[in-house]
Amino acid sequence: MKIGILGYGNLGRGIECAIRQNDDMELVGVFTRRDPSTVKVDSDVPVYSADKLAKMQDQIDVLMLCGGSATDLPKQTAEYARMYNVVDSFDTHARIPEHFERVNAAAIASGKIAMISVGWDPGMFSLNRLYANAILRDGNDYTFWGKGVSQGHSDAIRRIDGVLDAKQYTIPVESALEAVRNCENPELTTRQKHTRECFVVAEEGADLARIEKEIKTMPNYFADYDTTVHFISMEELKRDHAGIPHGGMVLRTGKTGKNGENNHVIEYRLQLDSNPEFTACVLVAYARAAYRMNQRGISGCKTVFDVAPADLSPLSPEEMRAHLL
Amino acid sequence: MKIGILGYGNLGRGIECAIRQNDDMELVGVFTRRDPSTVKVDSDVPVYSADKLAKMQDQIDVLMLCGGSATDLPKQTAEYARMYNVVDSFDTHARIPEHFERVNAAAIASGKIAMISVGWDPGMFSLNRLYANAILRDGNDYTFWGKGVSQGHSDAIRRIDGVLDAKQYTIPVESALEAVRNCENPELTTRQKHTRECFVVAEEGADLARIEKEIKTMPNYFADYDTTVHFISMEELKRDHAGIPHGGMVLRTGKTGKNGENNHVIEYRLQLDSNPEFTACVLVAYARAAYRMNQRGISGCKTVFDVAPADLSPLSPEEMRAHLL
Repeated sequence: MKIGILGYGNLGRGIECAIRQNDDMELVGVFTRRDPSTVKVDSDVPVYSADKLAKMQDQIDVLMLCGGSATDLPKQTAEYARMYNVVDSFDTHARIPEHFERVNAAAIASGKIAMISVGWDPGMFSLNRLYANAILRDGNDYTFWGKGVSQGHSDAIRRIDGVLDAKQYTIPVESALEAVRNCENPELTTRQKHTRECFVVAEEGADLARIEKEIKTMPNYFADYDTTVHFISMEELKRDHAGIPHGGMVLRTGKTGKNGENNHVIEYRLQLDSNPEFTACVLVAYARAAYRMNQRGISGCKTVFDVAPADLSPLSPEEMRAHLL
Repeated sequence: MKIGILGYGNLGRGIECAIRQNDDMELVGVFTRRDPSTVKVDSDVPVYSADKLAKMQDQIDVLMLCGGSATDLPKQTAEYARMYNVVDSFDTHARIPEHFERVNAAAIASGKIAMISVGWDPGMFSLNRLYANAILRDGNDYTFWGKGVSQGHSDAIRRIDGVLDAKQYTIPVESALEAVRNCENPELTTRQKHTRECFVVAEEGADLARIEKEIKTMPNYFADYDTTVHFISMEELKRDHAGIPHGGMVLRTGKTGKNGENNHVIEYRLQLDSNPEFTACVLVAYARAAYRMNQRGISGCKTVFDVAPADLSPLSPEEMRAHLL
């Protein structure tokens, strides 16, 4: 399978790494909208201008779209689905239906597969919501995120006057999680599910009390949460908060039996040192499926819901049945 | 979808319950190899002799095979796949490949779908092994069972001279589980992964020391484990150990990054008050998929690996994308 990467940020770099762990894949090139000479990749793979993609269809089986969901992917996915099998990580949940329609039209026209919203949420968490709902019909769903870095919330803090840099961790509330696991079916408010912890580097002489208040009262981002703010030095931030860990849990609790007397808990949990590298691994597995499905004549926009698990694995059906079933 | 149940033990009863939770399904009948008049079902559904199945193809879309893996399913699944879409819970892992071949030939000949080895292990645990292996290519797999009742081990104790009844719990070793979750990649022996706890009702005057020794030294079943034996009264057994709980965890830990510097943990955990009722819920979801796939012209023997998750859900693709993705 010959793979191209469009966009070389954290996700693109993660995909470059992930392809090295998959013997049946080969990285053809990294494509960028910047000047290719300014992009330094980790391997000896060539860096091309994104313009070259107009004429490389015979050299690439699946193109990995590593742009952002805010502005890149709403345009790029449909555009490149007209030329390639593509995989994206579009993660604006509320806009998935419209993204699907736009991309589906393009992929059906080209006869390619466009696999959208791949990653862990949306992605593996979505899959677990679907499986658990199909099994436990009478029950409740819960999704907790963290402990992990929220890029959006970190950025929001950085925009405050007097802040040099910041890192924000989303943390699930342990007592809420325990109530769910104990089948108490709690109804949880935003505040009861997660807390937010912020590590902030302020300018010298900045009004720390004002910064702290601006963070804690920021609508949408922090106002609905119990938020803790720690002011630290730039050295401490770089030393102790350089990583991009994340994770979380999807749970469903449900009842079965003549009178609903039996309780069940299904829990899927991720604990990730590197959010983008793990996301990249999921995208690469779905690139394999996109290629195989397209080889079988399937086209159009697909999500993780449409992919038979066997298509993700490099093993043969016989090996899977013998060793994984 | 019209469903038939063949075999009315714990699993068959669980399926009867599960169908009530699924509006798109209707239970047509319970089929038994016993005298139908001796089988009392929970609902007002008719009980038929299994012989009737030879002529009810137009009334049943999917037949749920609720026999045991030791002697029933190796014959029944292929036999009924010649007439019906079927779902079984064949769980003798080592014999799945031969079961698959036998059933596949029958299902291809009839143009039906035979979904085998459905449940939680094999089944949901297998799926999680496959997904996690496809994502984290460089890593280690761990499966822990329990805390839960092992029917096979309970039966083995009951066969000991002087034992009236018994219940055996399989319990994961917490420290081993913690080592796995901490990405220590431990190599664990059988003894290090699980302990076994036995509640035994002995005949009056029986030699308890001899019974305890026979249990603890029983090859295959107990000799390789740290086993605890409690002698209790029949009243206590009935009061405190009547349930059939089970569960467990599938974990994969793996490395990513340029130098494998980032660790990740994927964990899937089940905590089940009733092993057969949960298994039944999984089978019923896969009955939906078997029916839909066969409607699309697909036939042959399938496992959970071959089923796109969307086929398990009663929701439409649009609803799934809007609410679960």
